[in-house]
Amino acid sequence: MIRRESEMTQKHYEHMRDGKLSVDARVFLEASESYGAGSFFGCATMPPGASIGYHRHDGEFEIYYILRGRAKVVDNGQEAVLGPGDIMQCRDGDSHSIENIGELPLVFLAMVLRCHPAAE
Amino acid sequence: MIRRESEMTQKHYEHMRDGKLSVDARVFLEASESYGAGSFFGCATMPPGASIGYHRHDGEFEIYYILRGRAKVVDNGQEAVLGPGDIMQCRDGDSHSIENIGELPLVFLAMVLRCHPAAE
Repeated sequence: MIRRESEMTQKHYEHMRDGKLSVDARVFLEASESYGAGSFFGCATMPPGASIGYHRHDGEFEIYYILRGRAKVVDNGQEAVLGPGDIMQCRDGDSHSIENIGELPLVFLAMVLRCHPAAE
Repeated sequence: MIRRESEMTQKHYEHMRDGKLSVDARVFLEASESYGAGSFFGCATMPPGASIGYHRHDGEFEIYYILRGRAKVVDNGQEAVLGPGDIMQCRDGDSHSIENIGELPLVFLAMVLRCHPAAE
């Protein structure tokens, strides 16, 4: 299956998880197309100053893969600054947040994948 | 868990799946860290002219997310040219290949995820 960037479903979230400003996302794979692997597969863009508030994942994990910009993240209480090519994995039972602390849009891939302990 | 680009495991493959030239990859998440979700999570770079040969996936699917460059892909027999922001999903039981037909390196994320029909 081929999907061009221009064909992807667009989403807009205000104050996501009680964060600041807004987040736009292009869904590159619908959850229903993922054979049960995950619930969200998107490319997110946040303007300077925007954030996704601190929240927890249970029975699943999330990967943020930074494509452009500069992000301050909190990974289960530990703060870090990430740039292009870096990742954060919010592990099962952990919490995280992300904020655009740069002067340009922050662009990152976000994927929420289900845990399948029996397969480990 | 935070992982910087510079800390990722690097892999080098020659003639991958009987393809041309070589592929370099940085593993952004180890399979053992994925709670059974998948077997490969990497950012691949291929020089001009390089390819990964046509091959099949069973019981799993693969996503290619193009970051930079120009790729000719074959998705279960159908040819297409992809650029940054476009994706290909090789679905369960399908086959695919990818070739760098541009003059610059082709950079894309590749993720092989397991199918979990019971969870659909």
